[in-house]
Amino acid sequence: MDILRGERLSEFSAEAASYTSSIDSDKLLVPSVIKINKAHMIMLVKKKILDVREGYGCIKALEEIPEDIAMDPKLEDVHMNIEALVVEKVGETIGGQLNLAKSRNDQVAAAIRMKLREFLLDILSALTQLKGVILERCKEHIKTIMPGYTHLQHAQPVTLAHHLLAYCDALVRDGERLMEAYKRVNISPMGACALSTTGFKIDREMVSELLGFDGLVENSMDAVSGRDFAIEVISDLAMLMTDLSRFSEELVLWNTHEFSILEMPDEYASTSSIMPQKKNPVVAELIRAKTSSVYGSLLASLSMMKALPHSYNLDLQELTPHIWDACQITLSTINVFSNMLEKVKFDEERLLELVKMGMASATELADTLVREKGIPFRASHRIVGALVKRALSEGKGLDQLAKEELDKIIKDVTGKSMGVSEEVLKKALDLVENVKARSVKGGPSPEEVSRMLRARRKVLRDHDDWISKRRGSLLLSDDVLKKEVAGLKEVMET
Amino acid sequence: MDILRGERLSEFSAEAASYTSSIDSDKLLVPSVIKINKAHMIMLVKKKILDVREGYGCIKALEEIPEDIAMDPKLEDVHMNIEALVVEKVGETIGGQLNLAKSRNDQVAAAIRMKLREFLLDILSALTQLKGVILERCKEHIKTIMPGYTHLQHAQPVTLAHHLLAYCDALVRDGERLMEAYKRVNISPMGACALSTTGFKIDREMVSELLGFDGLVENSMDAVSGRDFAIEVISDLAMLMTDLSRFSEELVLWNTHEFSILEMPDEYASTSSIMPQKKNPVVAELIRAKTSSVYGSLLASLSMMKALPHSYNLDLQELTPHIWDACQITLSTINVFSNMLEKVKFDEERLLELVKMGMASATELADTLVREKGIPFRASHRIVGALVKRALSEGKGLDQLAKEELDKIIKDVTGKSMGVSEEVLKKALDLVENVKARSVKGGPSPEEVSRMLRARRKVLRDHDDWISKRRGSLLLSDDVLKKEVAGLKEVMET
Amino acid sequence: MDILRGERLSEFSAEAASYTSSIDSDKLLVPSVIKINKAHMIMLVKKKILDVREGYGCIKALEEIPEDIAMDPKLEDVHMNIEALVVEKVGETIGGQLNLAKSRNDQVAAAIRMKLREFLLDILSALTQLKGVILERCKEHIKTIMPGYTHLQHAQPVTLAHHLLAYCDALVRDGERLMEAYKRVNISPMGACALSTTGFKIDREMVSELLGFDGLVENSMDAVSGRDFAIEVISDLAMLMTDLSRFSEELVLWNTHEFSILEMPDEYASTSSIMPQKKNPVVAELIRAKTSSVYGSLLASLSMMKALPHSYNLDLQELTPHIWDACQITLSTINVFSNMLEKVKFDEERLLELVKMGMASATELADTLVREKGIPFRASHRIVGALVKRALSEGKGLDQLAKEELDKIIKDVTGKSMGVSEEVLKKALDLVENVKARSVKGGPSPEEVSRMLRARRKVLRDHDDWISKRRGSLLLSDDVLKKEVAGLKEVMET
Amino acid sequence: MDILRGERLSEFSAEAASYTSSIDSDKLLVPSVIKINKAHMIMLVKKKILDVREGYGCIKALEEIPEDIAMDPKLEDVHMNIEALVVEKVGETIGGQLNLAKSRNDQVAAAIRMKLREFLLDILSALTQLKGVILERCKEHIKTIMPGYTHLQHAQPVTLAHHLLAYCDALVRDGERLMEAYKRVNISPMGACALSTTGFKIDREMVSELLGFDGLVENSMDAVSGRDFAIEVISDLAMLMTDLSRFSEELVLWNTHEFSILEMPDEYASTSSIMPQKKNPVVAELIRAKTSSVYGSLLASLSMMKALPHSYNLDLQELTPHIWDACQITLSTINVFSNMLEKVKFDEERLLELVKMGMASATELADTLVREKGIPFRASHRIVGALVKRALSEGKGLDQLAKEELDKIIKDVTGKSMGVSEEVLKKALDLVENVKARSVKGGPSPEEVSRMLRARRKVLRDHDDWISKRRGSLLLSDDVLKKEVAGLKEVMET
Repeated sequence: MDILRGERLSEFSAEAASYTSSIDSDKLLVPSVIKINKAHMIMLVKKKILDVREGYGCIKALEEIPEDIAMDPKLEDVHMNIEALVVEKVGETIGGQLNLAKSRNDQVAAAIRMKLREFLLDILSALTQLKGVILERCKEHIKTIMPGYTHLQHAQPVTLAHHLLAYCDALVRDGERLMEAYKRVNISPMGACALSTTGFKIDREMVSELLGFDGLVENSMDAVSGRDFAIEVISDLAMLMTDLSRFSEELVLWNTHEFSILEMPDEYASTSSIMPQKKNPVVAELIRAKTSSVYGSLLASLSMMKALPHSYNLDLQELTPHIWDACQITLSTINVFSNMLEKVKFDEERLLELVKMGMASATELADTLVREKGIPFRASHRIVGALVKRALSEGKGLDQLAKEELDKIIKDVTGKSMGVSEEVLKKALDLVENVKARSVKGGPSPEEVSRMLRARRKVLRDHDDWISKRRGSLLLSDDVLKKEVAGLKEVMET
Repeated sequence: MDILRGERLSEFSAEAASYTSSIDSDKLLVPSVIKINKAHMIMLVKKKILDVREGYGCIKALEEIPEDIAMDPKLEDVHMNIEALVVEKVGETIGGQLNLAKSRNDQVAAAIRMKLREFLLDILSALTQLKGVILERCKEHIKTIMPGYTHLQHAQPVTLAHHLLAYCDALVRDGERLMEAYKRVNISPMGACALSTTGFKIDREMVSELLGFDGLVENSMDAVSGRDFAIEVISDLAMLMTDLSRFSEELVLWNTHEFSILEMPDEYASTSSIMPQKKNPVVAELIRAKTSSVYGSLLASLSMMKALPHSYNLDLQELTPHIWDACQITLSTINVFSNMLEKVKFDEERLLELVKMGMASATELADTLVREKGIPFRASHRIVGALVKRALSEGKGLDQLAKEELDKIIKDVTGKSMGVSEEVLKKALDLVENVKARSVKGGPSPEEVSRMLRARRKVLRDHDDWISKRRGSLLLSDDVLKKEVAGLKEVMET
Repeated sequence: MDILRGERLSEFSAEAASYTSSIDSDKLLVPSVIKINKAHMIMLVKKKILDVREGYGCIKALEEIPEDIAMDPKLEDVHMNIEALVVEKVGETIGGQLNLAKSRNDQVAAAIRMKLREFLLDILSALTQLKGVILERCKEHIKTIMPGYTHLQHAQPVTLAHHLLAYCDALVRDGERLMEAYKRVNISPMGACALSTTGFKIDREMVSELLGFDGLVENSMDAVSGRDFAIEVISDLAMLMTDLSRFSEELVLWNTHEFSILEMPDEYASTSSIMPQKKNPVVAELIRAKTSSVYGSLLASLSMMKALPHSYNLDLQELTPHIWDACQITLSTINVFSNMLEKVKFDEERLLELVKMGMASATELADTLVREKGIPFRASHRIVGALVKRALSEGKGLDQLAKEELDKIIKDVTGKSMGVSEEVLKKALDLVENVKARSVKGGPSPEEVSRMLRARRKVLRDHDDWISKRRGSLLLSDDVLKKEVAGLKEVMET
Repeated sequence: MDILRGERLSEFSAEAASYTSSIDSDKLLVPSVIKINKAHMIMLVKKKILDVREGYGCIKALEEIPEDIAMDPKLEDVHMNIEALVVEKVGETIGGQLNLAKSRNDQVAAAIRMKLREFLLDILSALTQLKGVILERCKEHIKTIMPGYTHLQHAQPVTLAHHLLAYCDALVRDGERLMEAYKRVNISPMGACALSTTGFKIDREMVSELLGFDGLVENSMDAVSGRDFAIEVISDLAMLMTDLSRFSEELVLWNTHEFSILEMPDEYASTSSIMPQKKNPVVAELIRAKTSSVYGSLLASLSMMKALPHSYNLDLQELTPHIWDACQITLSTINVFSNMLEKVKFDEERLLELVKMGMASATELADTLVREKGIPFRASHRIVGALVKRALSEGKGLDQLAKEELDKIIKDVTGKSMGVSEEVLKKALDLVENVKARSVKGGPSPEEVSRMLRARRKVLRDHDDWISKRRGSLLLSDDVLKKEVAGLKEVMET
């Protein structure tokens, strides 16, 4: 007889069972569910709600269950499958106690949180590694001058290091968000039972600690019906992927024949046997597209939760695969991106060629006129604008115009003669000087970028410490759980 | 040596291969890809671009490939896997001609369209069946009076048939959209090759007909880079699912203890061994949630295509699994909904009880005063409003108020006495009469609903005819393809 | 006294009134609401439900209401504002009949449909105009050879006309979808009243015809609670905008210094006073971004309707502004795009330069070897791959390699000598010949593109006819309505 | 002459100007933009980049600009409008210095952050107020027993306080997220200029402090091209609105005739003059719908940023109105919800009636059998399941079954007699005792809920402190700015 449906309901239809079964996305939950059951048994024994024989009987059966069990869809989910296996092994008198003072509702929420915290730590580790790679690439290119783009048009000269560092800084924020989310993820709903806790005098804190949680989701209805912790993570991942999609877009662009700023590594590009000159940046393209898949998961999840009354509804089950999809996409993307970026070849000569072709020094020249000659900002802009126009019409660079032309235009606009020295002019138009001059906080000057690189390395170390601490704490709780099990075993054997 | 990468590129990294491989979602495409290759070979032979030996050699190899082939992720996708199998079987001299005058870009678009048209026909068949079930349930409840709701408040009496028919009508439009989409799905991109057709004098129409397409996606760049046909379908499915989510929400509500309007069939509800009175409407809940998953696929797909330059980019590959997800969710949902609805037990007595408890006749009473006594609409509303208020304060139904009270209130409001006859009053308040009176086009009166049911049955038959015609046409093209293959075989053997 | 709240409810709070008021997005509905009221009055008089004095009294008052009335948010919406104005003008005895046998629920649905059909026709007109512009630009560039891109890498030579035509074809499908949606938009919900029609013997068809509708939304509950007609349009607009976002992305890319394929017209670009060389493609950038805003409206609308029970709920009101946003964005985008595209300057020399720099003829050369020398496809690919590799390493174009090198490589790969004539070789590598050779249906050859242009012009004319027919039909119904009003006036005056 | 376009570009087309103008959503930015300009002038003077006459001249002109200036769309945005006004007032020699060493790109990012931090503080204040209201309502209903729902079916008894507290706890997390986002919002991009800072020796920290920022967005390219701070907020608001949509859904349900658990306050409900018994929960319905609008803004924003190359692109401009929409919707929703909830009347008797009708004590009875009689959990579930079935078939409550029946069923299932005492039985079935027994952490027992209420009040006070501190810090920086202006004035006048 079906342990859940009892005698009253006729059988669940096969199609309904298949439609509602969650065993596919439950696979990731097996180790957590087993661990939860053990911790719960230990607590029940310690609180004298079960005797050692019952508690240890269940635990022993649980220890024999492999992580890759084949689940029966008829038993709906991982929870019932595991109970059935335990009952099969030790009989109902003992195995039938497995779900005393807990329920699928609190258990699934706990298991999702445990798997999710693992994903979070893995994603954060991958992320610090990626940021490490970026910093390495920055270090190589502190002096690589390139055109800074706005509207995809050449605007002002920057360095490649400065450009790449912008991504690192965005990813630092992405990491911070995930670390903040962690504290809302790693709290225990166990003990909430179906929705209203239980009349048994259980100890929620004990279970929480045995499972490595940092605290409780206190209110029991909130504990079983909230999924904001998961949506927050998916949303954070969507933002992270957005940053990687922007970076990937630049890889795609810069890899074109027209830009020719970089060459994708063979290992991360595909080609055509007939057109070996093509290096299709397929990985970067897919990162772009997979970003959209994460958006899809985010919006599906939000829309699922909208206007859902309390407390547990089965709608929540459909949310779980979206969590795993978002995590798996993001984790694999960070890893592949990291390895790919390590091997991208930037073409420094081409970057210099590009920045020279543009009129990237125009702004600095105008600023120089303000600074050296006291010409108001808008007027000096007008002067340089006229100069650029002249240069364009003559197919020259700004540095190829004669000093006389500048003098003449200044006089045309301001009505005054004010000899600009050759030296000043040359310095204003010199790209290296230009970049060097931008040494204010956050600017592209090599000196300032070097300072920022040092500061970012410190941030990465801090993040690494944070991750290690959490991993350590989880390992510790695993140890405690094992010791408690060993303790029960000892009691049983003596 | 890798047939694609040739000698120039070093090996694709394993993680890049795994990240970019599409073989999982390509599984559904195997039969179509095989068919496309056959049709293409036949055309090349008929156009004398290949000789029979080459063409038939490839076809024979193709015929030996099972639909459930194990694909090698290193070979990227279904297309390269199948070419590799053919080359393995017949050698490169013959097998190496398989991709002459075609490319993965046109082939994948064609295969997706072929699988999608199949899904469309299956979904449309399931949909007409579901609408058939709704019409059956309507027929049973043409006279079942119930409260019509606005803002989830009792508004005016309707019948259950009328209420259910509203869903049928929405689903008819959902079906129409899919039928219209079909003509944009079932057109052939074959011959577009990578993006610009080919210098070989191929016959695109011939391939199109052999594959059951109704025409060409003419412009070759459009043919390989457009996915609007798929997004249109996903969007249509999102609307369809929205309608089913609304219906499901009502099943959930009506199944509550508080509404008690219906009982979910055991086969489509779950329960608790401890609370057998609970009938958790899990299937209906999941339909609600899976609707959101389809939204997710829609938005992922749109966002993927946004701002993508021409022509083919690998981003398109990430879109494909979203098509299958949306189709599979919708198809299984319609089927499960259909079977579930067939067995839902509506409680006619409860519906009558509910409609009586409300003041559902108030509008008709007001309209009666306008009609019979020439009281202006707003004034008569005020009169009935006062009556209802009186009834509520006395805990009575409108029909329990004395005629004198009505007379008195009319005088209070209008300043005039105008005896309303008992008979008129009784008729206005009689629920059966009330519903019967709403016999204008589209109204809930049994007569009008019966007329609509007849008309809808006709619509379903038309839809069924439409589906049969398309299925017939596809079968026919299959036959032609087989005959052409047989023809080649004959030539070879003679 | 508040006409709606009557005596029972204490006053609506000011904040609730402001929170729930729809008058902002109702502004667009004023003309339709006035027209609906008139048509309804005419029908009531013709069906002898009201007498001429009442009907014409209301109509006269309606005719005095300006389209830009200042609405009072306390009166919630356009419907109550207009009723209040009519009552103010002609008193309650007559004005109080305005809402006899109708309701805000059917009226708002009708008004939205009327405004939406107008938007649809305007959008479709703008769209055919845009497609006209594309065809003009195609005509200019039938022979303008350019690199066809896949993965943003040079793949094979196409023409600019062929490339632009791909957008035209996508937009044709976008237009077809909107035309198909029109028939689900332009049907009348009037007569559904609050949800269940009415006991008055109204004539729904008459009102429908007076308002220019092509039929009824029959079932009255469906009529007031469905918004799929609007979501379908928003979704169609999202697809249309997606196509324009792709086109805009190419304008942005092609306008970069690196691509330099086109120059944006001054009137549609912004710049910087200091960097006049910059032509920021701001319009194209915003089109890209506004596409996302339409996606937002689509998601919002779907998610609003999800799991909403029957029939009318105020949630529907929040959907309306999303319809107008999507329509206004799309209409203005098509118009601005059309005018911008007209003036874009394509640089034919640059396109030729680009296509020459790539190895775009490689595919054709391989195909030639298959065709002329009977080398199997994969082998000929390998040969040309080796040639390209040689050319790249020597920094030459394929056409700069000596015939001897080809002969040698053929021998290396196939083991056989097979002299390829200079003539064949030259033809294969000639870009003009190359494009000319792609003359199969839908290919880039000038001849085939010319044929397609003629065919598309025919399609545009058909679409224009379709639009004119609908506009004509709406004008006609306006005339009939005016005549009916004049008829009443005459009766009144005699 | 157009200050921006200079001499080179012909005029921007009127339609392009209207299409790209941001002045509508810039209105909210005026005060911030004025403040930024002042702080920037002060810094330039202090760093001796400008002299006092120039700096103070600009500031004086800025002080004369009203917050509700009418902006000219031709001048594109708020930045150019304000510069134009300043130039108009003090001439170009002085006014033309306004944009020295800054740009629209850093300025708009700074202004958005300043307005957004204001919204954040207002939303957080409103949120603590709402949570205060919830706690008040909890306090009233610590002993109000009601059915706890899962799957919208009666599951186990809880209290109304416990149920409401679940919402409070979710909203606490929503608040925490916004407080964490604040630190990523309130950092200054000023000094990043167009993208690469400037050659002038500006002091970014000084400007940051004068504007009340807590630090810098250091990397200048990151500073102008990142909008993750805004998307994070929109996403947090989407989660917050989701929680309110769930609460609103319950208000709608509980307000139905069928549930009759509460009565909506008149001030927050609409009705019908004809059906005064209806209390349409229009505010709650709109909250549900507006939640979807926030989802729309979130998706639009994410999709806008996807794959956008560095650094500033005009796409970013289209994101801004979505920030304001999301903030305004959320702020008004929290406020209206708060006031509405304060006045909702819960019907305690009805709640008791409902919980009695169900079989809510079944779980406790089963647990009692485990506890008192040592029957294993699954077996005791089977026993109680059989009892419930019996009760249902006889139309009785569990408490109406004779003790003998329980004894008999126990014997049937377990094969053993085990007299359960009347007292134990009575206690298990007593709802008050039942709830009281659930006194574990987070349970519904009055004692535990009281403890939680005290703890939550402490949390609210902490949040209030946090808000006050930020408000104080902003006021302080305003003061400093004023003093600096006064200082300049003094210098000028002496």
